[in-house]
Amino acid sequence: MRERQMLDAAVRIFGQRGYMAASMDEIAELAGVSKPLVYLYLNSKEELFTACIRREAAALTEAVRAGVRPGLPADRQLWDGLRAFFAHTAEHPDGWSVLHLQARTHGEPFAAEVAAMRAEIVAFVTRLVAVAAREAHRDPDLPEHEVAGLAEALVGAAESLAAWANATPGTTARQAAATLMNFAWAGLGNLMRGEVWTPPAEPA
Amino acid sequence: MRERQMLDAAVRIFGQRGYMAASMDEIAELAGVSKPLVYLYLNSKEELFTACIRREAAALTEAVRAGVRPGLPADRQLWDGLRAFFAHTAEHPDGWSVLHLQARTHGEPFAAEVAAMRAEIVAFVTRLVAVAAREAHRDPDLPEHEVAGLAEALVGAAESLAAWANATPGTTARQAAATLMNFAWAGLGNLMRGEVWTPPAEPA
Repeated sequence: MRERQMLDAAVRIFGQRGYMAASMDEIAELAGVSKPLVYLYLNSKEELFTACIRREAAALTEAVRAGVRPGLPADRQLWDGLRAFFAHTAEHPDGWSVLHLQARTHGEPFAAEVAAMRAEIVAFVTRLVAVAAREAHRDPDLPEHEVAGLAEALVGAAESLAAWANATPGTTARQAAATLMNFAWAGLGNLMRGEVWTPPAEPA
Repeated sequence: MRERQMLDAAVRIFGQRGYMAASMDEIAELAGVSKPLVYLYLNSKEELFTACIRREAAALTEAVRAGVRPGLPADRQLWDGLRAFFAHTAEHPDGWSVLHLQARTHGEPFAAEVAAMRAEIVAFVTRLVAVAAREAHRDPDLPEHEVAGLAEALVGAAESLAAWANATPGTTARQAAATLMNFAWAGLGNLMRGEVWTPPAEPA
């Protein structure tokens, strides 16, 4: 219970002030506990920050997973997943700032934590795209390599849009999800039907 | 001339070893100059790193700009821009690692340098999407807000794919550009024609 209060306070301070500027005094004060107690639970600023990253990463991954019901059509699963993602990042802007910005800008051990979460989400999206491709056109199959690239593109687009949506007043989670869905699905949807964009002929 | 040798060496060492592990000794040795000379030109490791970020950011922005010829159809401009982007990041993997990874993971002043370059590229892509939307369907116009979101999504997707392509043996710049173009253009292309993906009806 107290640990949760401390982590809540830490995520808020790290997310709003940044890792460097955040002070343990301020975190303890916001949590309503003494500074020695914070150190008792979580040895150092580094460990406290790592605990924040892990908790926020787990919460985000869980929110996306919970939003998607397997068995529905692929575009519906993607739409549900995107809405869950943008709803979570909009409701937890400090947590998203910790994951997307702070954890990646303050050195290797923290960046590695986020990279692990990201790899999990990319794997999830890759399976989704692969299943959709199989459902849609078996022959010729979308090459595995292409599927992996599409998943990377989609995750990168979602990360970028979430940061933009949180920094742009008046952008709702639903709008952000719809923008990306229009961008991604109409493109992916065409690909699934085997309708590719054709590059212009050019001199060898 | 010597400054260029030093920066070439620094980008290589920073890109491959990471900012923390890079040593000024190694950079001087690779550049074939004495360590005091490196410090004479660029006062500190921080300044040397900042000089690397600026040079690589300028080179990347310039490569994309040079690849695009205004006046061509929007999909052609986008394709040319993406090819230029992926060709440059593939040819300069250490420079891309400095910009995308190292500069963003070692604190504020460096991250701000990259953010400035990114803002320039987003603005460029935003104009491209806006022009394409105007050309394609004047009424109703794609809302400005939606255009900005699409540009953010596209840039995020490109960054993510470039990192993936460089880490995935056998992926050519042209393949990466084609993957993203298929993803983005077929999606954007539908949007331009006013064909949006429709979310499923749901209970209020």
